[in-house]
Amino acid sequence: MRYSNDMQPVITLTSGPVNAYPDVLRGLGRVVLYDYDPAFQLFYEELVAKTQKVMGLSTRPLIMQGEPVLGLEAAAASLIATEDTVLNLASGVYGKGFGYWAARYTGNELHEIEVPYNEAIDPQAVAEMLRQHPEISVVCACHHDTPSGTINPINEIGAIVAEHGAYLIVDAVSSFGGMQTSPDACKADLYVTGPNKCLGAPPGLTMVGVSDRAWTKMKANERAPRASMLSILDWENAWSHKEPFPFTPSVAELNGYDVALDLYLEEGPENVWARHDLTARATRAGIKAMGLELWAADETIASPTTTTIRTPDGLDEQAIRDEARARYGVVFSSGRGETAGKLTRIGHMGPTAQPIYAIAGLTAYAGALNALGRKVDAGAGLAAAMAVIDAAN
Amino acid sequence: MRYSNDMQPVITLTSGPVNAYPDVLRGLGRVVLYDYDPAFQLFYEELVAKTQKVMGLSTRPLIMQGEPVLGLEAAAASLIATEDTVLNLASGVYGKGFGYWAARYTGNELHEIEVPYNEAIDPQAVAEMLRQHPEISVVCACHHDTPSGTINPINEIGAIVAEHGAYLIVDAVSSFGGMQTSPDACKADLYVTGPNKCLGAPPGLTMVGVSDRAWTKMKANERAPRASMLSILDWENAWSHKEPFPFTPSVAELNGYDVALDLYLEEGPENVWARHDLTARATRAGIKAMGLELWAADETIASPTTTTIRTPDGLDEQAIRDEARARYGVVFSSGRGETAGKLTRIGHMGPTAQPIYAIAGLTAYAGALNALGRKVDAGAGLAAAMAVIDAAN
Amino acid sequence: MRYSNDMQPVITLTSGPVNAYPDVLRGLGRVVLYDYDPAFQLFYEELVAKTQKVMGLSTRPLIMQGEPVLGLEAAAASLIATEDTVLNLASGVYGKGFGYWAARYTGNELHEIEVPYNEAIDPQAVAEMLRQHPEISVVCACHHDTPSGTINPINEIGAIVAEHGAYLIVDAVSSFGGMQTSPDACKADLYVTGPNKCLGAPPGLTMVGVSDRAWTKMKANERAPRASMLSILDWENAWSHKEPFPFTPSVAELNGYDVALDLYLEEGPENVWARHDLTARATRAGIKAMGLELWAADETIASPTTTTIRTPDGLDEQAIRDEARARYGVVFSSGRGETAGKLTRIGHMGPTAQPIYAIAGLTAYAGALNALGRKVDAGAGLAAAMAVIDAAN
Amino acid sequence: MRYSNDMQPVITLTSGPVNAYPDVLRGLGRVVLYDYDPAFQLFYEELVAKTQKVMGLSTRPLIMQGEPVLGLEAAAASLIATEDTVLNLASGVYGKGFGYWAARYTGNELHEIEVPYNEAIDPQAVAEMLRQHPEISVVCACHHDTPSGTINPINEIGAIVAEHGAYLIVDAVSSFGGMQTSPDACKADLYVTGPNKCLGAPPGLTMVGVSDRAWTKMKANERAPRASMLSILDWENAWSHKEPFPFTPSVAELNGYDVALDLYLEEGPENVWARHDLTARATRAGIKAMGLELWAADETIASPTTTTIRTPDGLDEQAIRDEARARYGVVFSSGRGETAGKLTRIGHMGPTAQPIYAIAGLTAYAGALNALGRKVDAGAGLAAAMAVIDAAN
Repeated sequence: MRYSNDMQPVITLTSGPVNAYPDVLRGLGRVVLYDYDPAFQLFYEELVAKTQKVMGLSTRPLIMQGEPVLGLEAAAASLIATEDTVLNLASGVYGKGFGYWAARYTGNELHEIEVPYNEAIDPQAVAEMLRQHPEISVVCACHHDTPSGTINPINEIGAIVAEHGAYLIVDAVSSFGGMQTSPDACKADLYVTGPNKCLGAPPGLTMVGVSDRAWTKMKANERAPRASMLSILDWENAWSHKEPFPFTPSVAELNGYDVALDLYLEEGPENVWARHDLTARATRAGIKAMGLELWAADETIASPTTTTIRTPDGLDEQAIRDEARARYGVVFSSGRGETAGKLTRIGHMGPTAQPIYAIAGLTAYAGALNALGRKVDAGAGLAAAMAVIDAAN
Repeated sequence: MRYSNDMQPVITLTSGPVNAYPDVLRGLGRVVLYDYDPAFQLFYEELVAKTQKVMGLSTRPLIMQGEPVLGLEAAAASLIATEDTVLNLASGVYGKGFGYWAARYTGNELHEIEVPYNEAIDPQAVAEMLRQHPEISVVCACHHDTPSGTINPINEIGAIVAEHGAYLIVDAVSSFGGMQTSPDACKADLYVTGPNKCLGAPPGLTMVGVSDRAWTKMKANERAPRASMLSILDWENAWSHKEPFPFTPSVAELNGYDVALDLYLEEGPENVWARHDLTARATRAGIKAMGLELWAADETIASPTTTTIRTPDGLDEQAIRDEARARYGVVFSSGRGETAGKLTRIGHMGPTAQPIYAIAGLTAYAGALNALGRKVDAGAGLAAAMAVIDAAN
Repeated sequence: MRYSNDMQPVITLTSGPVNAYPDVLRGLGRVVLYDYDPAFQLFYEELVAKTQKVMGLSTRPLIMQGEPVLGLEAAAASLIATEDTVLNLASGVYGKGFGYWAARYTGNELHEIEVPYNEAIDPQAVAEMLRQHPEISVVCACHHDTPSGTINPINEIGAIVAEHGAYLIVDAVSSFGGMQTSPDACKADLYVTGPNKCLGAPPGLTMVGVSDRAWTKMKANERAPRASMLSILDWENAWSHKEPFPFTPSVAELNGYDVALDLYLEEGPENVWARHDLTARATRAGIKAMGLELWAADETIASPTTTTIRTPDGLDEQAIRDEARARYGVVFSSGRGETAGKLTRIGHMGPTAQPIYAIAGLTAYAGALNALGRKVDAGAGLAAAMAVIDAAN
Repeated sequence: MRYSNDMQPVITLTSGPVNAYPDVLRGLGRVVLYDYDPAFQLFYEELVAKTQKVMGLSTRPLIMQGEPVLGLEAAAASLIATEDTVLNLASGVYGKGFGYWAARYTGNELHEIEVPYNEAIDPQAVAEMLRQHPEISVVCACHHDTPSGTINPINEIGAIVAEHGAYLIVDAVSSFGGMQTSPDACKADLYVTGPNKCLGAPPGLTMVGVSDRAWTKMKANERAPRASMLSILDWENAWSHKEPFPFTPSVAELNGYDVALDLYLEEGPENVWARHDLTARATRAGIKAMGLELWAADETIASPTTTTIRTPDGLDEQAIRDEARARYGVVFSSGRGETAGKLTRIGHMGPTAQPIYAIAGLTAYAGALNALGRKVDAGAGLAAAMAVIDAAN
């Protein structure tokens, strides 16, 4: 039997969207209240407070009404003024991509530290660049560059940037909720994340941590979007049940997101992080035991929320994913841009960050290789993954 | 007993968001597929085709990933080039508001026809303006100016604009799906609407009808947003199951929207329009029979999807809505901007476009007036509404 | 427009099933756990404890896996032994009907007090009967005889029965949750109710309050069902997370029921009862103001969860309900058995026990009469109902 | 990390209840209609017709309002008259158990063919018994004796019984929908099954195929339950939208069941059976490759919907399931009665009848054994299972 393209897969092990938690899916179907109804406005105020708690923030965060690309674009557009000098850190396709937005808003040349897309940014390189370019006023960093499955040392980078005095924009979309990270810990001025990765909710919202000085800087930026879908500033006071919304918020998404936050808090963030980490470690152990190669140059930078596997020589990466889906009903993510074709990604996010899904992912990946004539010892891989899981018990 | 602010109301009779159809609410909870999964890409292609059918369009429409303000802002940003001369038609707060976006993108002075916010635009005034200003290249019109509850003769306006040769941007957000209107019928180049009003889905998406020449014009517009949340152009080919999405679409919203389209087609658009119309007519009859005044200067321009009632002299409009909610659990919309305080809106949209809700709305409105010391003959109002309903039987 | 038979109605104002609360509907869709899974067994134990709290019981109640006819039949079959002499109290079709079950299990002649089906049982008549027949060992009473919409003075009856020493079986299916009543207050030995009336959950479960001496009596009854769907005894220990279930419980129903209990406790039983009472009072006021006749001989025995209206002379009762549904999309209950044709029932249960639905019900009923040529002053009826609602504010 | 008892498991691989299909879970939350509403009555009539189609029946089936133990008990109570002589076929705990019900209703001695609970009934033994006892008028057989995971040759048995002229009662609860079987194919007079196993709906309903002559026999049986929850006869005409229901049907269960039938028909029964079969075969291959023993004496009688594994000597069966759940979040079924402790069951039913879940099940089972000190070669087991899956591609 094969799962045809028009059949739904059995298990989605991607780097997002992943399927949402069942409770979140049902939460999406709560009654749609009028956004000006007092019950809704009170709900929204509580939701912002809950978001602050979940993000471990000392300041009030913002919920934006679109998936995190909205928040990222808005961050660049709002914080980066013409007179700013920007340093962009690129260790992957998403970090690199943010530079294009940054370049759009700065009036000066964009500085960039770029490393091979299977490596992480060296904080000392950032320190050195800032020493050489004291004019740098904004630094942009991607915590988890999803198309590479690699983690940058964001807290170390943040400390250096803070000492320098520059503003820091952090893309933590696919790390937040799946590992220990917070806006305060990395001293981010704008910290962009979303509910549609490790929190296990559908795509459609962005959460933004905003430092006090970021609010000041954005307000002073004449070109920061206002009266616009892209605006951060418009939403400054929307948290209050006494204030109107700039436009109709995505009520159903907020309803689902509320459940996702509750689940996260009830399970306990440390517990959630632990199962992401364990699932990723089991997956990596299995991959290595099958004689395959992790994409990350060094396993210490491998993401706990996504495992990236270098495409074995001579194989078509899409064919691997196609076979895994057709034979086992398991869906993986491909690379993006420069990493496309070079790697396959097995996501461990939210509801799929469970060790048993490491087994499912390894099986489907190994089965696909075998089907394509590249014989690997699947049994050895699975046994290695099981050993990791059992050791954590 | 009173419904306190933190209790959910019983019936939401607003101009949107309204509660979604139960089937739509459940549809939101469908499995979240990976956006690159072939099953999802096929679903999306079919969804665009279904949207085209529902919109009665000769060209392929666009689905944008945010509630209709996104589509409206994107329409202005994409279509209006610096060299364009724009005529904005303002018969209410939303029409007027669009002019601010239009003015942002044109390099020329904005022309505007503005009428009192309880009247409609006269097509002959448009014709005259176009005669006087042959340089006008873009006309912007709001079909149903929701904060006024009034309908503009959009097909007549469209015919005049088409003859002139200008491009036409139409805001049909709160009329489409509740009455007979289509992009082709009004010859719109960009026709912006959404699922969160008369289609009975939650807010979070925009549908945009795009004429062939609008695509050409937008592509030629160097300042049209690209690589942006605001971009229409980025999504031109996203309908195809073979093409990637510019960014992750709002999967859950699309799942709910799909159900809303099915419901609309199954019930039959004419039947849907008929119950919107009947509910509005019954409501208006009731209002008049209670000696109250409709906001619309002429009942022929009163919207079938929203009934606006002029606030009786001496009463605080918010107090009316507060009492209606506290005593009867029924929520209405207020005015907006210039109409705020001057009128109350009873919405008839999607699941609430049922004659029995005309009775509920009239009861709560009359009950609130009575509670505030303005005695009206509720019984007479309800009997008049019932007479309209019975006559339609 | 008319709502055809294959279209769903807009509002269901029946005496059950009523539509469930939206939160309950979503609760039905929780993950289905294996009944032997420890998480499920713990859930079930907590659910029984929550049921006890909701029922205000001093003993542990039972949840049975079928709608309340199961519990009623099981009560008769389990408690009534061959040697018992039974007194059945019949003030309506359901009370009368229970007598057929009672007669099936007793080996002696059934005693019965029967009053016209628009009246209530007089506790003194019960006392007198018990005096005359000291051998009566079991008394059966229906608290709210739904097909009549009348309430029996169950606490007074219970006190008399208790003094006599007989066992008391109470059918409180359609009263519990909508008014103040509890097994302990009426000294019931078996008190049968369900979640599908005033608790706003779907039909499929029964809750049974069981006194300690009822357990003893049932165990001593050799003919009490065992190893049977009809068995109460089989479930004695099923509440414990350490004990197996006699057969697979209805997991989804239990999931929905759990939400219904939470809603009831969160809103506060007194608040729930108050809105049932107010809705019923408003409905009765409206009926009377239209010159129509309540079925109940005395309004003091009219149920707060169902209003019964005597069919106006010369009209076909089904035609009334048909017109109400076709014109207004509002569904009522008919009578049953002897009351069929003679009355129409407007239910006020769970989600429909809201005053605004009194208005909807009166409108549809009056509109139907008018359509059938029996002109009533609907306006007067609605105004009277509003006066009751406003007075309660 | 360990999954504690109060945490929900990740994957439920039991012999039922299994988790329902996501679409079914959402279907449970459809609007609850009044059972006398014409829209509901039409729905019910169509649902019975759809059931007939799904069951491949030449006669109209019955839907009963309780999980299949209700149908089984009702079958015995309704069909078996005092004067009947019954042959019960027992190849496992459930078949044996049915004999207790049969003995309750027959006035004659119960005949029984009992084989070890890891074997199947030999049709020739049935033929021989019928030859010896021409007075046998009712034969009772269990198609899939779930606590053993073994299949009886029901079509062969049915042919022999039919030739003899006896009535045949078949328990097909856990086979129907997961393999090719139908009431007509095995010539069953009463064929009891349910939606809560291979159809992937929750427990709460029974479907009963009834032959014409079974109706006649039940009607002639004075002791057949009437006016009872246990009655089949009461429901004879309930299929018709013109007839009342004997009592309120379980509306929500029916709503979910309707979706389950649609899914089954859309996927195609053959496709559904194929994935049950493949999942079971992969599981068995894995078990054997790990050096473990299947419970079934002969693999040809192993069920495609449940794989039973003999408990390795010296291990506590519950400890195996506890470890599988605690380490991997995977839940299995234990044995029942005589098979309790001797075997573990991995279910392949409905949504879990997917080959990837064979891998998950084998992993958790092997991991549990390893944790308990019984080292097995999990890798070899998984590789063997993958080979079966790949071979089916």
